[in-house]
Amino acid sequence: MSDAYKFEYFTVQFPADHKYVAHVEINRPGSLNAFIEVMWENMARIFNKLSTDPDVRAIVLSGAGAKAFTAGLDVKAASEGLLSSETKTDPARKAASLRRHILAFQDCISAVERCEKPVVVAMHGYSLGLAIDLSTATDVRLCARDTKFGVKEVDIGLAADIGTLSRLPKVVGNYGWVKEVALTAREFGAEEALRVGFVNAVYDNREATIAAAFKIADLMASKSPVAVQGTKEILNYSRDHSVQDGLRYTGVWNSAALQTQDVSAALMSGLQKRTPTFEKL
Amino acid sequence: MSDAYKFEYFTVQFPADHKYVAHVEINRPGSLNAFIEVMWENMARIFNKLSTDPDVRAIVLSGAGAKAFTAGLDVKAASEGLLSSETKTDPARKAASLRRHILAFQDCISAVERCEKPVVVAMHGYSLGLAIDLSTATDVRLCARDTKFGVKEVDIGLAADIGTLSRLPKVVGNYGWVKEVALTAREFGAEEALRVGFVNAVYDNREATIAAAFKIADLMASKSPVAVQGTKEILNYSRDHSVQDGLRYTGVWNSAALQTQDVSAALMSGLQKRTPTFEKL
Amino acid sequence: MSDAYKFEYFTVQFPADHKYVAHVEINRPGSLNAFIEVMWENMARIFNKLSTDPDVRAIVLSGAGAKAFTAGLDVKAASEGLLSSETKTDPARKAASLRRHILAFQDCISAVERCEKPVVVAMHGYSLGLAIDLSTATDVRLCARDTKFGVKEVDIGLAADIGTLSRLPKVVGNYGWVKEVALTAREFGAEEALRVGFVNAVYDNREATIAAAFKIADLMASKSPVAVQGTKEILNYSRDHSVQDGLRYTGVWNSAALQTQDVSAALMSGLQKRTPTFEKL
Amino acid sequence: MSDAYKFEYFTVQFPADHKYVAHVEINRPGSLNAFIEVMWENMARIFNKLSTDPDVRAIVLSGAGAKAFTAGLDVKAASEGLLSSETKTDPARKAASLRRHILAFQDCISAVERCEKPVVVAMHGYSLGLAIDLSTATDVRLCARDTKFGVKEVDIGLAADIGTLSRLPKVVGNYGWVKEVALTAREFGAEEALRVGFVNAVYDNREATIAAAFKIADLMASKSPVAVQGTKEILNYSRDHSVQDGLRYTGVWNSAALQTQDVSAALMSGLQKRTPTFEKL
Amino acid sequence: MSDAYKFEYFTVQFPADHKYVAHVEINRPGSLNAFIEVMWENMARIFNKLSTDPDVRAIVLSGAGAKAFTAGLDVKAASEGLLSSETKTDPARKAASLRRHILAFQDCISAVERCEKPVVVAMHGYSLGLAIDLSTATDVRLCARDTKFGVKEVDIGLAADIGTLSRLPKVVGNYGWVKEVALTAREFGAEEALRVGFVNAVYDNREATIAAAFKIADLMASKSPVAVQGTKEILNYSRDHSVQDGLRYTGVWNSAALQTQDVSAALMSGLQKRTPTFEKL
Amino acid sequence: MSDAYKFEYFTVQFPADHKYVAHVEINRPGSLNAFIEVMWENMARIFNKLSTDPDVRAIVLSGAGAKAFTAGLDVKAASEGLLSSETKTDPARKAASLRRHILAFQDCISAVERCEKPVVVAMHGYSLGLAIDLSTATDVRLCARDTKFGVKEVDIGLAADIGTLSRLPKVVGNYGWVKEVALTAREFGAEEALRVGFVNAVYDNREATIAAAFKIADLMASKSPVAVQGTKEILNYSRDHSVQDGLRYTGVWNSAALQTQDVSAALMSGLQKRTPTFEKL
Repeated sequence: MSDAYKFEYFTVQFPADHKYVAHVEINRPGSLNAFIEVMWENMARIFNKLSTDPDVRAIVLSGAGAKAFTAGLDVKAASEGLLSSETKTDPARKAASLRRHILAFQDCISAVERCEKPVVVAMHGYSLGLAIDLSTATDVRLCARDTKFGVKEVDIGLAADIGTLSRLPKVVGNYGWVKEVALTAREFGAEEALRVGFVNAVYDNREATIAAAFKIADLMASKSPVAVQGTKEILNYSRDHSVQDGLRYTGVWNSAALQTQDVSAALMSGLQKRTPTFEKL
Repeated sequence: MSDAYKFEYFTVQFPADHKYVAHVEINRPGSLNAFIEVMWENMARIFNKLSTDPDVRAIVLSGAGAKAFTAGLDVKAASEGLLSSETKTDPARKAASLRRHILAFQDCISAVERCEKPVVVAMHGYSLGLAIDLSTATDVRLCARDTKFGVKEVDIGLAADIGTLSRLPKVVGNYGWVKEVALTAREFGAEEALRVGFVNAVYDNREATIAAAFKIADLMASKSPVAVQGTKEILNYSRDHSVQDGLRYTGVWNSAALQTQDVSAALMSGLQKRTPTFEKL
Repeated sequence: MSDAYKFEYFTVQFPADHKYVAHVEINRPGSLNAFIEVMWENMARIFNKLSTDPDVRAIVLSGAGAKAFTAGLDVKAASEGLLSSETKTDPARKAASLRRHILAFQDCISAVERCEKPVVVAMHGYSLGLAIDLSTATDVRLCARDTKFGVKEVDIGLAADIGTLSRLPKVVGNYGWVKEVALTAREFGAEEALRVGFVNAVYDNREATIAAAFKIADLMASKSPVAVQGTKEILNYSRDHSVQDGLRYTGVWNSAALQTQDVSAALMSGLQKRTPTFEKL
Repeated sequence: MSDAYKFEYFTVQFPADHKYVAHVEINRPGSLNAFIEVMWENMARIFNKLSTDPDVRAIVLSGAGAKAFTAGLDVKAASEGLLSSETKTDPARKAASLRRHILAFQDCISAVERCEKPVVVAMHGYSLGLAIDLSTATDVRLCARDTKFGVKEVDIGLAADIGTLSRLPKVVGNYGWVKEVALTAREFGAEEALRVGFVNAVYDNREATIAAAFKIADLMASKSPVAVQGTKEILNYSRDHSVQDGLRYTGVWNSAALQTQDVSAALMSGLQKRTPTFEKL
Repeated sequence: MSDAYKFEYFTVQFPADHKYVAHVEINRPGSLNAFIEVMWENMARIFNKLSTDPDVRAIVLSGAGAKAFTAGLDVKAASEGLLSSETKTDPARKAASLRRHILAFQDCISAVERCEKPVVVAMHGYSLGLAIDLSTATDVRLCARDTKFGVKEVDIGLAADIGTLSRLPKVVGNYGWVKEVALTAREFGAEEALRVGFVNAVYDNREATIAAAFKIADLMASKSPVAVQGTKEILNYSRDHSVQDGLRYTGVWNSAALQTQDVSAALMSGLQKRTPTFEKL
Repeated sequence: MSDAYKFEYFTVQFPADHKYVAHVEINRPGSLNAFIEVMWENMARIFNKLSTDPDVRAIVLSGAGAKAFTAGLDVKAASEGLLSSETKTDPARKAASLRRHILAFQDCISAVERCEKPVVVAMHGYSLGLAIDLSTATDVRLCARDTKFGVKEVDIGLAADIGTLSRLPKVVGNYGWVKEVALTAREFGAEEALRVGFVNAVYDNREATIAAAFKIADLMASKSPVAVQGTKEILNYSRDHSVQDGLRYTGVWNSAALQTQDVSAALMSGLQKRTPTFEKL
């Protein structure tokens, strides 16, 4: 484990047998990996760092402990935070303070989406509230059979505001189901998550899920990083733009990317049936 | 039944055992609940009224009679309407008249989407043409096993123009299937509707479907109305905007909404294992 | 076969027993229907022509030979093309040349989407790389049980740049699955394609798939061409715009389209239980 | 004056010597034409009615009395309105009530923009606050030399919320000037308004300004209403869309509009040097 | 004059004393340079060719003859064209034919905007109707003192549909003035055009205007073509997108463009006070 | 001067006689205030800090020394920076490095735009290259008569990429003029800047300009900070969205902001002819 990646409540590892793959683990298992403020900030720092780390080509994200990927926001800590802004009495000033706070939180989640390397998330156990916000900012979602998902925010009197309502419908592509689970806060399991396309696959338990995540991440890390990172970026761009705009952006992007030596490296090794090697990125 | 909600061809009720839930029923069963012009207008009036009625937190929409949710536009009446604009001979003036007519129709459907309270629709039997337009403007779609769906407009020589072509693809998230059913007008049943995500669930018959709709509506009505109505609004906004825009809008929305006392009410009752009470909205 | 539609590497036919339906077949079976530059251009010419050909109301697209719909870009030919731009040494000038090339390629694919008549594609065997780009520009996708799909571009060191990354997510509506197959280049079969909604249906073999495609195309061709072509256009517009914009565009479109005599032709023949005849378009 | 257009605080006239031109005058001169709630609603009703009145082809909007076009919102009345929502104590519920209120107000202003007939506004004297909101929703702005303009909202502690901040920058096309006047609330006169393009021309006094407005309106009313109303609609659409989208919308719009007999009527009378007559619209 | 650029009704020259500058002249002076169909097509072909011609870095566009830049559409020829679509009797089919026609026309104009090299237009005399459409698709507009401008389309019963209504407001940035001239069809002169920013400068006569256009074009042609063409492309992109999107696109564009040797060539020659030479593009 | 605001190459002051106004001065006069990398980062830090500093309500930005607001990027330093990325030989990897670099630079400029408090910039002397990028991110631009402006980037072989090409056209609203100055790199003076609306006013010299900037900033700082900051935010949002979207965002924003006590404070003091006091924000 690199010293550069020592952040409280997170373990970041670079397993020797998974070349170019980083493993980020949420590590506050005693509290079901519930998030307190410092964890948001650390998570953003970690993914910002990985984004440009030339030794990393794909990332696996998981939660430590048997019980939870993350049970969501640490409600107790969060309500104290809210209380602090309660000292303001003017509703408009309180609103300003809350808005700044929300935007800062959102930005930490968006760091995962902005990370230039693909992120595969392996979920298990309690995966509630911000577990959904967080996982919709990753690229591929896997889960264990025992996972308990829930967009729980309405249960505590608020509309989810750090990503779920913006990203979940675009991730699963089905508004009817999203509205049902977001407006009722009812929990749903791994099979339902698979059926609606929220997760790509379901595995027997936490370990098998993480192993599967590494398998996918390994595969991504074995490909040209120019190709993989370009593909992630263009897919994220396309989600928010028209097809015509997507094509135009792709053309400009690839006008530089196609000049890479990775293309001939990939073609050559394809013909010669050997594994290509790609320069760092 | 409230006098304020007496509108021809619709029954609006507030069942005592479903607190805060309104039940809107299309009521022209002798004509398979087919729509004539006054029904459009009445429907818009009803949903505009429910939108700000503080005693309503969720709405169930269904069709009276055993045979149909609605068989769609009353084609006979509509073709007479079209004929009236035929007195104009200049194609550009006829176009202006038709366009005003279409936009007015569309706006009646959009009243259901704009309604601040979530709407759960329970469909059965014939659910053709505008049944699709109408249901895609609701939040959650359920149906009985016997439902016969169809985007039938091409069968009468026109492109569906009051909502289906704009909303259906975003509801189900799959363009290939939408194009097939919209370009061929072939009917489809409950199972197919479930498989492609057009409905959230299928029930044995009309009664069971309406009962299930009430169950979901009850659940929504038991939550903080600040949270529920905010969630609906933000999800509708996000459908038509980029993720970045969605996050920004959410931040501003919640800067006021988070100041609600519903948050502490919900948290408290959660800790105390009792049902929270929320002020009207 | 019309002389006007003689283009190298393509067969265009107008089967007598499929009135108003054109059959376009990619015809370079000796090379697994892999695309070389002239094929792009010919394909665009064919679809541009069909778009306004009044004798055509629907199109079936398939690949000749038992082995492949198309194995994608002819990599050998393409790499020579790339090499030709390698004579430039200034990376910015090389980028300009590449960008022009990509945009020209994209435009050939977009000709299929822009074609005013609906296109049903029947895929079988190898359907890799640009097979995905191409098929996402059609309206309805069918495939044979033996089809081998793959977004293979990262395997040759590049991000797919002629349509897949912009259109595939909007076609299937599920970003998680798209990211997995696009970032790993792993192949997938007919059943998976059906499950995620990439294809509408799977058939036993190439012949059965093409027969099914004709059945759907025949059905489309039997409807009012005003209604069918309007529906395709509005659905394509709606994909890239907000619901509000979609409704506005639909209103303007139909202000002319509803003046067609097809509406009364369709209504009449509906009442009289006979097949309507529609003027050419 | 038509009975159909009798609305409190407004005079609507159809001057015999200005064929097809309606004159709407804000008529509460004793209070400097300041707006109270009923005036908003009446104004929306008037413009909705004029929008489809076949006897109207252009509209002049002005204010009665020597002193003001309108001094803006009747602050006294408005603050009472605000107070009524003050009975709510939950900030989120108060926010919901305020938001509904603002959107209803905005919609009244937007009725002027949505009106299918062009509107020329003649301003004089005090033209503060909502005078700006209102005039940016018209098509052509003229003013008298004595006009005192001001985006005054920050002076009463709020951001202008019924149109100015969204429309003014797009009307004048210069953000620097808009920011200065909106962030300081400093007043500006006719010459400055002309220089930055907020008004098209300045006249000596109220009467001359109204006369000039009629001259422009007469000119517009003498042209083909199909051409004029199409031009207004397409310009409004283009403001909010890309050039590419604007061209596409224009093409669809004119596909019906060009079928009008007004084109040959206009061409003929052009050749024959006589005034064309156009059917009503 | 190159043989490759021989197109009826246009003269294309490459003046020896204006290195890298092409001069395109509309050449049908006997008819005031009014456009007939073949001219549209030729103009598109010329600008498509110039767009990628490595010997061209900037373009001057002007009209031959003393009287007009162009008097617009050749109304007589156009009305015959319209008549040809009149053989269709179904209004929807006629609409389809008109729409295809309009889009084809628009695309010819857009070829000027899409041209990768900057275009400076020198106008004089009659510059009506499509003179406006055409000039708004160029980059810099100059005119002679005698120029008579007019958005004349409403005078012949139609809304301008080949570009003016979409581009003119974004070119001048002032909607009030655009609405006045487009809704009244009143003509305006060089001074007014300068005041509202439609032209950049006014010169004494046709010759002086063309000379000034060459001066600007020469200056553009003396700069790095990588820098100039990138600047044009990014400005056009930015017009139709948010600032955030503009910045993102710029970043991707320059990631290739900054690798050019033109940067060091420009810096060096700057230090050494000599004229830089740039490789062709 | 606060210790919290000590950043190399910048002076940040809070002049006692300008309550709530911060003065940020670029302070590297020996090098004409040309920017080196640390200055970007410091500038972003300063504006991020001021954005939420409750003691600041408006900001004046100027340049130290008699000769320049800023002569732009320190080309010598920048070219060394570029050289460092030259160690990479793969053009795609070099592109990735350049893109990250550009986005980081852009983000520093955007910090000025994102700053919640209005910024008035006072320019003088050399104001080239990034002086334009920077000033278009402020709210109000003033300049001294001796100012020499220029979008100089094409002169060093590149397209301006840190903001000018995206923001300048939206600031001045006139594309023709922007294209001329950006494609030729010709310099322009204060009078031209005023005429096209790039600056709001011109003053005799540096001191008078700064004094005028303070006058405007003082005025802004004397108003309700809720109103002022809301106005800035809504204007920035509106620039990048449709009018309809702008109105919707405004409604949500003001649903919280109107609950402020500043409204009654402003109204009261208005009636009582005294200066209102507003709580910090």
